[in-house]
Amino acid sequence: MDGQANTLRPERIIRFEEDGPQVVLLDQRRLPDEEVELECRSAAEVASAIREMAIRGAPAIGIAAAYGLALAAERGEEIDEAAAVLAASRPTAVNLAWALEQMRDDPTPAHARALHDEEVERCRRMAAHAAELFGPGTRALTHCNSGGLATGGYGSAVGALRTAWERGLLERVWVDETRPLLQGSRLTAWELEAAGIPHAVIADSAAASLMAAGDVDCVVTGADRIAANGDTANKIGTYALAVLAAHHDIPLYVVAPTSTVDLSTPTGADIPIEERAPEEITDRFPARNPAFDVTPAKLIAAFVTEHGVHRAPYTQTLAALV
Amino acid sequence: MDGQANTLRPERIIRFEEDGPQVVLLDQRRLPDEEVELECRSAAEVASAIREMAIRGAPAIGIAAAYGLALAAERGEEIDEAAAVLAASRPTAVNLAWALEQMRDDPTPAHARALHDEEVERCRRMAAHAAELFGPGTRALTHCNSGGLATGGYGSAVGALRTAWERGLLERVWVDETRPLLQGSRLTAWELEAAGIPHAVIADSAAASLMAAGDVDCVVTGADRIAANGDTANKIGTYALAVLAAHHDIPLYVVAPTSTVDLSTPTGADIPIEERAPEEITDRFPARNPAFDVTPAKLIAAFVTEHGVHRAPYTQTLAALV
Repeated sequence: MDGQANTLRPERIIRFEEDGPQVVLLDQRRLPDEEVELECRSAAEVASAIREMAIRGAPAIGIAAAYGLALAAERGEEIDEAAAVLAASRPTAVNLAWALEQMRDDPTPAHARALHDEEVERCRRMAAHAAELFGPGTRALTHCNSGGLATGGYGSAVGALRTAWERGLLERVWVDETRPLLQGSRLTAWELEAAGIPHAVIADSAAASLMAAGDVDCVVTGADRIAANGDTANKIGTYALAVLAAHHDIPLYVVAPTSTVDLSTPTGADIPIEERAPEEITDRFPARNPAFDVTPAKLIAAFVTEHGVHRAPYTQTLAALV
Repeated sequence: MDGQANTLRPERIIRFEEDGPQVVLLDQRRLPDEEVELECRSAAEVASAIREMAIRGAPAIGIAAAYGLALAAERGEEIDEAAAVLAASRPTAVNLAWALEQMRDDPTPAHARALHDEEVERCRRMAAHAAELFGPGTRALTHCNSGGLATGGYGSAVGALRTAWERGLLERVWVDETRPLLQGSRLTAWELEAAGIPHAVIADSAAASLMAAGDVDCVVTGADRIAANGDTANKIGTYALAVLAAHHDIPLYVVAPTSTVDLSTPTGADIPIEERAPEEITDRFPARNPAFDVTPAKLIAAFVTEHGVHRAPYTQTLAALV
């Protein structure tokens, strides 16, 4: 590995190359074993990379869709059709629709790069706000990967952990391995190792006993979609953590850019939950594989966006943001 | 596969062969892909099979230890030393110490077989009692494998599911895959498939959202050790399920033979929790890997043993049993 700073430069995670033209992204399915780039030469190929999770994480797939639409424009594809293909690639994260909407009037590579830069800058601001919630010696637990890989650079929940670490407030991070695709043990652990932050991976089902033992001070996650009332869709298992954290009087903080807030979705019940292939769980027996779950707003101690820390009542505080 | 009935005959799971002599067991690490037998020719080899989880499940490792002690006696090994090696193979399940204690005065193959037969018979009685707790159309969730494989035949929690299914009370079973060693998706699903019971495997972290959706009527597990006050050690993740079930007003039933009750362990805090190799979680990053957790008695709706259904106050009802 040629060093963290290099690996996680935003353009290493995803970039537009005029020479092609093409969208080039780090294939997250191959991490941490190999750093392999995937070249996409049409909006459909970008959509496929999103669907197959070569790039994943709500903000990052928004950025990928933005680059994908710019690619379609450069290649003379029909823009509405390209936007429809990209929008349909995954159903739960709202950032996808948000980014396509932003791009519609100016589907250029320069505009996509500007959105990408802004998203990374939002992460840094979010992280600075979120770190205010950390006391000295914090042992934080996180789920899935809400790091630089998930956001195009720096990270939302992992960004908060980075900033807390730089400020000397973080003692260690518990990383849920995050079945079935192991984004925690493959991606978050890789990012934390590169950043020099002490961490240990655990089976998802071990979080509760660490909480009971008093070894967890807060739970920090990202989000795929935040409904107007604060109900939040995120990687399957987040809701379980939220119930467990509440049972142990541990705060759960959701760190996500405002592009994740969807005021047109009234409550969590209105968020479509992607059901992925059962083979991700087992190829030998029947399986159910919901990719996300919904955490009711009342189990969330605070949201952190680029604008600050937001507390209940979320219907008001979120509406004021957007 | 040559059929469920054959596969799960008690002597297929583990048996003593005078010709050797040796203890022969079905290597559960290779299931469901291959049915391979492992031959143990000393108490130390049986202890190693237990430690490496070729045979696992609290009642089954008690039976294995009993056969192992008989093997030591037949081979002229020093009995106290053999008992010590077997007792030290895994720390959490109390059935191991219980079976060795039972065997001490008569460490013969015939005695080990009698204990094995009794354990299977206890499972059948337990299952009949447990099925009384099931209403028509029950959708049950189970964790790890408390099946025939874990008990030397028939099963404790899975035995309850078998009997409920035969009585027409069971609609389907949700099977936690049970990371890190996947006893749910490898062993429980295999047993349920063979028994013709409708089932679906889920990621451990998906149980909560199934509960929230109203798709789970009860949680049924086995146990590795039940303290005098009812606090119960079982496979890591059981405690999480207990908290989640309580949050959703879903009963958790623990089905286990009285050989699992340890009145000399006052509370869950006194149960030693095995920490297994971090490589079972990931061989690339630091990890923590507790194999068990402790569920407080107050989160358990009922215990079911071969003697019936036992409700709180457990300090009284468990003491009356043993």
